[in-house]
Amino acid sequence: MKIFVIGMGPGKEDGMTIEAARILDECDTIIGYTVYLELLSGRYKDKELLSTPMTKEEERCRLCFEKASEGKSVALVCSGDAGIYGMASLMYEIGKEYPDHDIEIIPGVSALSSGAAILGAPLNNDFCVISLSNYLTPYEKTVKRLKAAAEGDFAIVMYNPSSHKRKDSLKNACEVLLEVLSPDTCCGYVKNIGREGCTVKVLTLAELKSAEVDMFTTVFVGNSSTIFLGGKLLTPRGYNAERTR
Amino acid sequence: MKIFVIGMGPGKEDGMTIEAARILDECDTIIGYTVYLELLSGRYKDKELLSTPMTKEEERCRLCFEKASEGKSVALVCSGDAGIYGMASLMYEIGKEYPDHDIEIIPGVSALSSGAAILGAPLNNDFCVISLSNYLTPYEKTVKRLKAAAEGDFAIVMYNPSSHKRKDSLKNACEVLLEVLSPDTCCGYVKNIGREGCTVKVLTLAELKSAEVDMFTTVFVGNSSTIFLGGKLLTPRGYNAERTR
Repeated sequence: MKIFVIGMGPGKEDGMTIEAARILDECDTIIGYTVYLELLSGRYKDKELLSTPMTKEEERCRLCFEKASEGKSVALVCSGDAGIYGMASLMYEIGKEYPDHDIEIIPGVSALSSGAAILGAPLNNDFCVISLSNYLTPYEKTVKRLKAAAEGDFAIVMYNPSSHKRKDSLKNACEVLLEVLSPDTCCGYVKNIGREGCTVKVLTLAELKSAEVDMFTTVFVGNSSTIFLGGKLLTPRGYNAERTR
Repeated sequence: MKIFVIGMGPGKEDGMTIEAARILDECDTIIGYTVYLELLSGRYKDKELLSTPMTKEEERCRLCFEKASEGKSVALVCSGDAGIYGMASLMYEIGKEYPDHDIEIIPGVSALSSGAAILGAPLNNDFCVISLSNYLTPYEKTVKRLKAAAEGDFAIVMYNPSSHKRKDSLKNACEVLLEVLSPDTCCGYVKNIGREGCTVKVLTLAELKSAEVDMFTTVFVGNSSTIFLGGKLLTPRGYNAERTR
């Protein structure tokens, strides 16, 4: 039996792809983290909706295979894209124990795209994507990557810039970046993309260091060509585009 | 008048978001590069469909503002996501000359997500996105970024790995990466994502160096933890996930 791992895109329902919506319409059982299931519960109140808490990702994966073994068609939902800080790789790893089942990943719009769209076009040239969470990556590795991203003059997207236990993650990351980048580097962030309370702000890297962000915030740092234009954050496509300005 | 800049996702129609499809249904005029318009022409044969050739991006942007000035509701379509090597930033830059019009970016599923979904989960930890085209970024800058990405132990996605004029781009990029990375680094590529002739391959970095790719190929290079598993390319989410293997 095939199990679908679906990226739901940003919070709002019409941010899903047509393919994702069709598979959710057709499946028997939808499994996910509680918050995402609540977003779907109005539309799918007649389906079996099952959740496990935030840190129980392995249990959530096993539940998918167990339900599929009962003959149910199963969709595991993730916010954004399942392949970007989502459940895709863990499903394949745990899937080794359930060789009778296939996995298909249905891609979705990640916060790097939906957040960028709200801010303007901060990622319109080469960029890096870095999670500031130390839950799955050691902090020293994150610091090394932040330095490499700054030295490569990449635009940077930062996921998970804060949590209850990591109040200073963004401040610390900005300090690492400021060893290489100008304090005037153009930056921005978006909170609650596609949901109630969506807020957006553009600011310099120096200002970003003391910004109040939470776990639902996605942070963008420009490259050396990024500009503010009419309240938007824009990274030009490249040097030809710049010549026309 | 608001102009929508829409990421269509991968080639197939159901890879679009529900929001993108609704806006295309409602608009008067759809503007885009010829190839993408052909993908839409069946569905939208009663609308005004306008295209400019590949290298005439500025003309295409101006056409949007001119049609909007005539009172038409206009959507500019890009493949993948308009904010990732798409037209989003150029629209804002040219939009300075047309202050009566607003721009709204509608995000889509980029090839980094749709390609990753076909390969497995190669981007399930921090990653970099680099275009190998030297049309808009000088080659020296691309080399610097490739080195920084390798030194930061990022997974890497490469867009535009080849063109008629740049037959050796991927080979040259692999040589830069091999100065830092092991020749056994797990890699993969996808051609014609979501379209007829979609092909997928996993291979080592040493093998990637001599792979035959074209301008419709997206290339993925793993980080030091990336593995092959059952024909898929997987980057584990992090060290906790690794401990469970």
